[in-house]
Amino acid sequence: MIAIGIDIGGTSIKGAAVYDDGKMLDVFSLPVIKGEPGEDTIEKLIDLLENYVKDQGIADEIIGIGIGIPGLIDVEKGVVVSSNNLKWENLPIVEIFKKRLPYPVRIANDANSAAYGEAIYGAGKGIPYVIMLTLGTGVGGGIVLDGELYEGNLGQGAELGHTVVQFGGRECSCGRKGCLERYASATALVFDTTKAMDEHPESLMHRISAEQGQIDGRVAFKAARQGDLAGLEVVEQYIYCLSEGILNYCNIFRPNIVILSGGIANEGDYLFDRINTYLAKERYGFPRSPVVKVVPAKLGYDSGKIGAAALFLHEKNS
Amino acid sequence: MIAIGIDIGGTSIKGAAVYDDGKMLDVFSLPVIKGEPGEDTIEKLIDLLENYVKDQGIADEIIGIGIGIPGLIDVEKGVVVSSNNLKWENLPIVEIFKKRLPYPVRIANDANSAAYGEAIYGAGKGIPYVIMLTLGTGVGGGIVLDGELYEGNLGQGAELGHTVVQFGGRECSCGRKGCLERYASATALVFDTTKAMDEHPESLMHRISAEQGQIDGRVAFKAARQGDLAGLEVVEQYIYCLSEGILNYCNIFRPNIVILSGGIANEGDYLFDRINTYLAKERYGFPRSPVVKVVPAKLGYDSGKIGAAALFLHEKNS
Repeated sequence: MIAIGIDIGGTSIKGAAVYDDGKMLDVFSLPVIKGEPGEDTIEKLIDLLENYVKDQGIADEIIGIGIGIPGLIDVEKGVVVSSNNLKWENLPIVEIFKKRLPYPVRIANDANSAAYGEAIYGAGKGIPYVIMLTLGTGVGGGIVLDGELYEGNLGQGAELGHTVVQFGGRECSCGRKGCLERYASATALVFDTTKAMDEHPESLMHRISAEQGQIDGRVAFKAARQGDLAGLEVVEQYIYCLSEGILNYCNIFRPNIVILSGGIANEGDYLFDRINTYLAKERYGFPRSPVVKVVPAKLGYDSGKIGAAALFLHEKNS
Repeated sequence: MIAIGIDIGGTSIKGAAVYDDGKMLDVFSLPVIKGEPGEDTIEKLIDLLENYVKDQGIADEIIGIGIGIPGLIDVEKGVVVSSNNLKWENLPIVEIFKKRLPYPVRIANDANSAAYGEAIYGAGKGIPYVIMLTLGTGVGGGIVLDGELYEGNLGQGAELGHTVVQFGGRECSCGRKGCLERYASATALVFDTTKAMDEHPESLMHRISAEQGQIDGRVAFKAARQGDLAGLEVVEQYIYCLSEGILNYCNIFRPNIVILSGGIANEGDYLFDRINTYLAKERYGFPRSPVVKVVPAKLGYDSGKIGAAALFLHEKNS
């Protein structure tokens, strides 16, 4: 049993056939051309997919096509309501697919499908209540409750990065002030690193970023590991903000685990030990509540494709 | 078809037989005596309930007993893990009931059962995605997703008042700093009212609270309605904090409506118009997302009893 999982990103579209044990066949890929109408991009994607299905000889095994898309999605109507990254608006993507292909099609927000992939086939395998936070340009969120993806009414919820953690705080791209993603995203970490470098000309972060050729999310962590005080301060503040955000979701959902993905999740035990220690100390505000473990994602960039496919595979499994 | 709904509070226990249209028979009531062991209180409650069932002649119609309890509840084991208000710990309440009565018993957190009552039989009747916030001593929360009560893994989530909206903000009873309930509860409103009165000896709030004999959640609203600037400032700040909290839950759950209960919800259109205007302006951070309407609760103190009964009635209905 196979489902096609497609992950649409801001610069490229990637897809693959996924078996119901989570294993993938070859990945196909299509660049996203800036300014190209969404309809045209989707027609090209279907061309590519038709060839892929033929080449792999899997036409008879496919039970459906799942697609993860950045932006606001109407999962019931199968429409991309609005995607800032792609400049798509009211794109009836499922309808376009169905005109040309005989398979059922489902769409989901990209953060949701990635979370679903990790929950079902990755770091959350076999665990019922899973929250995933993707720490990138923003903070994406995914919620899996008792093995089912919770996307919010009409698939338009689970915007875990767009919850205010600081009244009147940093301005967010969403229009609000003080959203979690302004404190816990990779972008926020780079912002805070740059600010700390301005304030601390003596910091190791200057040498590290010069060696790397850029200031990214790793600079403060590298400096902190080497005992740099300014770097350590950035890292500690970042971990505080992220942990408080995680605690909020613990108190709402009481998940068994929280999965972190994105480049920052590569910081390993240094990061995860500190977060888990913080959570254990704070105990979610309720001394008797069950421990939540925070763990790194396992599937990397494949989580989106695998999760999109899982929109079909998992249902058939369960 | 009848279920017994019981609402356990810090000072009294109230219960009633509830029909599957949400209508209640007479209410029975038992005071909670401070210092009395939980087992003893429950035995008395069962005595009372046995007489009630006999008096009402409903023994054969009862399909179950639902109980809402303040504190941390293990719904699967049927145990009150810990209740600060009642000083109960690890009380196997379902087991005690089952020893003496032939009916199935379910327990829920009191805020959850009240939300379920409002969602199924009150202000949320017929509406699938409902969030309720109870604005009292603290901020209680309840989540109903597609007609089903979401209590969090093991029934220990939905603590919507204990999410941080201000990093390092006001100290909360839960141990965290900056929880929503420190800004949006009735207690918080009284705190802010008292502070504003200290700073503004000219404010109408002094006369109003003297007339009332106390400073409560109505003082600032009454003053604001009469054009008092200090009172208006308190009310506006309160509405800002509450609305931001509601927006957070909109972005996570995208509910159709948010129900507010507690004394503050009696402020009527003056309050609800302002909240709904704020939400419409902020549009949940996403201009295309569906509008969420914020409305007052309808069932008053009965929501807990009706919701506890609905733990059985709604399942049979759907």
